[in-house]
Amino acid sequence: MTLPETIDAEQLADRVAAGDAAAVAVELREQQPADAAEVINELPEHARAEILSHLSARDVSHLLEYLVRHGERALTPLARLPGGSLTAIFNRTPLGTAARVLREMPRELRSEIVDSLAERDIVRNLLAQDEETAGALVTTDFLALRERMTVMQAQATIRTSEILTRRLSHVYVVDNDDRLVGSVSFRQLLLSPQNLDLGRIMRRDPISVFAGTDQEECARIMERYRLDTLPTVDAEGRLLGFIDLPEVLRIAEGEATEDMYMIVGLSAEESVNTSIARSVRLRMPWLLVNLVTAFAAAAVVGMFESTIARAAILAAFLPIVGGQGGNAIIQTVTIAVRSIALGELTLRNARQVLVKETMLGLTHGAAMGVVAAVAVFLWSQELILSIALGVAMVINMLVAGAAGVLIPLILRRFGVDPALAAGIFGTTVTDVVGFGVLLALAAVSIGVLGL
Amino acid sequence: MTLPETIDAEQLADRVAAGDAAAVAVELREQQPADAAEVINELPEHARAEILSHLSARDVSHLLEYLVRHGERALTPLARLPGGSLTAIFNRTPLGTAARVLREMPRELRSEIVDSLAERDIVRNLLAQDEETAGALVTTDFLALRERMTVMQAQATIRTSEILTRRLSHVYVVDNDDRLVGSVSFRQLLLSPQNLDLGRIMRRDPISVFAGTDQEECARIMERYRLDTLPTVDAEGRLLGFIDLPEVLRIAEGEATEDMYMIVGLSAEESVNTSIARSVRLRMPWLLVNLVTAFAAAAVVGMFESTIARAAILAAFLPIVGGQGGNAIIQTVTIAVRSIALGELTLRNARQVLVKETMLGLTHGAAMGVVAAVAVFLWSQELILSIALGVAMVINMLVAGAAGVLIPLILRRFGVDPALAAGIFGTTVTDVVGFGVLLALAAVSIGVLGL
Repeated sequence: MTLPETIDAEQLADRVAAGDAAAVAVELREQQPADAAEVINELPEHARAEILSHLSARDVSHLLEYLVRHGERALTPLARLPGGSLTAIFNRTPLGTAARVLREMPRELRSEIVDSLAERDIVRNLLAQDEETAGALVTTDFLALRERMTVMQAQATIRTSEILTRRLSHVYVVDNDDRLVGSVSFRQLLLSPQNLDLGRIMRRDPISVFAGTDQEECARIMERYRLDTLPTVDAEGRLLGFIDLPEVLRIAEGEATEDMYMIVGLSAEESVNTSIARSVRLRMPWLLVNLVTAFAAAAVVGMFESTIARAAILAAFLPIVGGQGGNAIIQTVTIAVRSIALGELTLRNARQVLVKETMLGLTHGAAMGVVAAVAVFLWSQELILSIALGVAMVINMLVAGAAGVLIPLILRRFGVDPALAAGIFGTTVTDVVGFGVLLALAAVSIGVLGL
Repeated sequence: MTLPETIDAEQLADRVAAGDAAAVAVELREQQPADAAEVINELPEHARAEILSHLSARDVSHLLEYLVRHGERALTPLARLPGGSLTAIFNRTPLGTAARVLREMPRELRSEIVDSLAERDIVRNLLAQDEETAGALVTTDFLALRERMTVMQAQATIRTSEILTRRLSHVYVVDNDDRLVGSVSFRQLLLSPQNLDLGRIMRRDPISVFAGTDQEECARIMERYRLDTLPTVDAEGRLLGFIDLPEVLRIAEGEATEDMYMIVGLSAEESVNTSIARSVRLRMPWLLVNLVTAFAAAAVVGMFESTIARAAILAAFLPIVGGQGGNAIIQTVTIAVRSIALGELTLRNARQVLVKETMLGLTHGAAMGVVAAVAVFLWSQELILSIALGVAMVINMLVAGAAGVLIPLILRRFGVDPALAAGIFGTTVTDVVGFGVLLALAAVSIGVLGL
């Protein structure tokens, strides 16, 4: 196993503080850019700015696509570089990466840099794209070959082009109106007779997406058809650029994490590195929503205050009903949300999944209800209340199965992300239903049986 | 946007039933293999087997890597093909894919097929690899070039080789002992002078992994360094093959989903398509664990039965304390689990993250505690009990922050997956602490103040 050697950030910081920034910059150039970006991100801000000032525009531009992964904070030292350097750096950066970096920079600095760029119109256009779409990911620096070129002409064009610095397996082919018509692999160019037209050797009609296509869908298409690049076209079919698989890998991982975060009321933007102030701002709203929904459950319990006053052991049963129902609905919601994201749960099979999860809830409810009722009876010796607990659990888990599928589908129906705090809404449903059924049954049996 | 046209599975099933299987097979050949595999998977079993019998060994072998994505069930029609066909199919399939498919087949059929294969030793070796490692993903059908070859010799070798059917951007270079020493892109081969040695133009010491390297780590390395293939070597550095990015994309997505499933006590193997019986088997154990832990919370409440009998409104406060604590700890656990998976939370920064989440819990607790105490006072007019509720919430959310980081780290310390039912354990902690503090404070104040 060969992995690049990494450097220790603390040691580097000391050396920069000791005035050794130029030598440190030289060492970082030798590192893999992913590693260099990580180390730089860990340095104190002034050290980062100093190191960047010792790197060439070309070196910094190579680092940008890795620095941007560490978020906004990693890019702050850029603001300390003189305007001329920034222009030089961004003029050398692939436009898609430049746009991604610029998105994370303060608005004023951003427009200043954009105005100074050679390709400012394309970059402005990229910045205007919705962040979650193919347009925001697209690599626009690419070489497109013409259908009527011969293999020999294509080879000559590639030889003289400075664009193709990235490792790619193929080049896209366009017609005279720049419409995407095919792709040719470098391997084919290497192996085909020199005088054939590209139109003869290319693969026709490659799979492509629009700039407005959702990134998650792009990831799904690339995974499904095993593509390493995905061309992006405009409404007329003209080639705008392509999306690169490593970028999509981050998105695919990110989307699954995002779903999971949203279910529990977290923002996808948060990580362990987020500042406390920002974490508070991000989490507090959902904790408040959760508090409001908790009051709904509390109100249900409050309605039965006199019942509980007569049989206080009922209070001890609440966490059992609530805990089981909550866990069951969170399980179902999680499966439903991921299945929607993966395209496995659609309106077409919604009914079938709903029936399955409801049956599953009934089965689990029956099993857990009996176990819990027996256990609680052995503990409390309250036969009627133990039966009420068992019945409440059966009903609650049946409801958990149904609601766990319906909540994400309903959120989606209203154009909201199906994961959005689905866990919070879900556990409210099971708390309200579980407590309500348990206490109502208890109230009736205490009243009727005069316990 | 150009996407392949898809066919309707029901219509195909009718046509197969009407004796049209041969024509259907021809149409499916024209489809993208990913789409053909999906349609085939949706057909009734006998129709699937019939269609496969009308496809050539070569066509079926192309389908295999897509069929295997639909899991075990999609591969059952293979068992109906005659042994000779199966051998022909598997002999044409890349060995890595063959091994992945064989893993999903019944043990007896599997060993029968393996015994009949030309490369049976390599396939047996692949099957012996741990399923979660690089070795189980590796593509072993590859062309490695020698360091001492000239560009011209390399081009000739590639021309006469039948192996490189996949779209790749580069070829790996080995020394005389088959040790991986570099890589050369097709683009370089196209552009370099014909008489140079590969050793002169190759990139040296490519990043590589061992066959035993965990798949999740492979995904991380490929994402970090933006690799489209990742070579796999043995202990002596000999090249075994390489891992392909589209395969890893599936793993990366899968791992995030897996974490999320495990936190709530689900198995990564489950989807909406899992049978009810299997879903019950997979979920019941964790629901039972959850029931046991719910009894811990119930026991705490039970200890204060007489307190509740005197102030039954306390029962209504339980869902408020429990709900907020539960939501807070699930949020923290989710962040901690994903951060561990992404390498952002390690033992090195554990203390810092622990402090942050504890502070965050304290902040949220203070804010929510005040809001809840005021709201509950307005509702119940119980001043002392409302204060007790507020205090319980502060303490509980502080504990939620700390325990939410510690539980995944402790699970990991004991060699268990940090996500393993962390949500279930977490909510138990907050239920026990929240209920305990609230009721203890209430008991003391009722006792002392004689309310």
